[in-house]
Amino acid sequence: MAGPTPGDDIDLAVVPYPPDNKRLRWLAGVRTRLVQAQYLGYDGVAEALPPGHVYANARGVHETSTAELALALLLAAQRGIPAFVRAAGVPAKEPVWYPSLADRRVMVLGQGGVGRAIEARLAPFEVDLVRVARTAREGVHGITELPELLPGCEVVIVGVPLTEETELLVGAGFLAALPDGAIVVNVARGRVADTAAMLREARTGRLRFALDVTEPEPLPPDHELFRLPNVLISPHTGGMSTAMLPRVARLVRRQIELLLTGAEPANVVLRS
Amino acid sequence: MAGPTPGDDIDLAVVPYPPDNKRLRWLAGVRTRLVQAQYLGYDGVAEALPPGHVYANARGVHETSTAELALALLLAAQRGIPAFVRAAGVPAKEPVWYPSLADRRVMVLGQGGVGRAIEARLAPFEVDLVRVARTAREGVHGITELPELLPGCEVVIVGVPLTEETELLVGAGFLAALPDGAIVVNVARGRVADTAAMLREARTGRLRFALDVTEPEPLPPDHELFRLPNVLISPHTGGMSTAMLPRVARLVRRQIELLLTGAEPANVVLRS
Repeated sequence: MAGPTPGDDIDLAVVPYPPDNKRLRWLAGVRTRLVQAQYLGYDGVAEALPPGHVYANARGVHETSTAELALALLLAAQRGIPAFVRAAGVPAKEPVWYPSLADRRVMVLGQGGVGRAIEARLAPFEVDLVRVARTAREGVHGITELPELLPGCEVVIVGVPLTEETELLVGAGFLAALPDGAIVVNVARGRVADTAAMLREARTGRLRFALDVTEPEPLPPDHELFRLPNVLISPHTGGMSTAMLPRVARLVRRQIELLLTGAEPANVVLRS
Repeated sequence: MAGPTPGDDIDLAVVPYPPDNKRLRWLAGVRTRLVQAQYLGYDGVAEALPPGHVYANARGVHETSTAELALALLLAAQRGIPAFVRAAGVPAKEPVWYPSLADRRVMVLGQGGVGRAIEARLAPFEVDLVRVARTAREGVHGITELPELLPGCEVVIVGVPLTEETELLVGAGFLAALPDGAIVVNVARGRVADTAAMLREARTGRLRFALDVTEPEPLPPDHELFRLPNVLISPHTGGMSTAMLPRVARLVRRQIELLLTGAEPANVVLRS
């Protein structure tokens, strides 16, 4: 699907990556058995996909890479890597004691595949883990408990899907509840956080941020967030690593096997 | 022990951090029951410590922080964090696919406390782990097997103590045996690696390096290694995080309890 479709009858259409919902319109008038995305989130797909298609997301493909980047951003920010890169060998006037990840209370906000993959990677780092999801359950706090939980968390990793409920969830009130020096890591969607509110807390130096996603995305290169030493930004690269291709291939092979045997495909999230 | 000792009879002398073996000479003519270092390595201590002292190292104090930094350096280097910091918001001409840590074969060279702490933190990252120590044992390769092992390893993390056997271990031959694009992470001692040999492999872009320790240390700020995009250097900050103080305090409390009960102190590595 690198251009108009090759015909009007396709068993399995794999949507290009990175995704662009506009290209889903190419499927108008085409009969498919399955439209397979290479992406986990599907905000906007229901509006863009022509009728008559079965749409599967890429659950199981990006969790590894995205969770890995969340840890990379967090560990780099905690241990001063951006400062060392900028210093380029010029020693600090005084040795700086950076905050370890160890001994921190870490909130993982979102308990889908990415949240659980992040949690698995955090486990050996001697942290005190706080799980939060939309609804409370055994071992997991509900999102309504955030006001009581945030003041105790020195690290918040945001891994929720973008929904009406999570849009701008990380706003001025959320941030104000965090303790001085806390860091927010966002590997979810830019619109889950309020850019202006983050900028205010970053500018004073009270909070720190490590963001793989932003709103707008990309941020303009002259955006003040790029100039602040307590903000680390990667260019929405969570899923873009060599971990992706073998995992996409594995999913597509599995879908082909399911289609061949007439079984229900995996990961179906929408029927248009 | 921030200056000359307060008397000639001390139960427990805690050596300052970062360590400087010259300061051990202050203990000439002083009677101690225990000299407690805040450092793991004790190269040069036997030569510097006046006679009659029992010297304990800081085993259990720095493993957490050092292993954490090893992962921070490795993950940052794999996922392009230094490039994103340098770009400061200017987008790359083409999206870059960075190598994940997932799916890599990772050698952990050294199976002491730091090596084991690194291994624990690597475990959830979907890597293929290769353990190497001085002598082979169940599940651990011996150092003599390096020539056969290195060509298959895309990541090598060096966590061996500095001894006659490990000095310059990571030399031209070691590096030449690694596959193209491999990364060497050194959180051990600078003299374990040959700086000139690393520079040669870094300059051509064939190998990548993430170094918390160097020889000399610090490297002069105008050293070419600081200018190369495939080299990430932190200023020997493995143990310098907030994880240190509570762990030193725990060890000192334990030693005081042992001394009070007349028991043998922990971590004794030298008697002068």
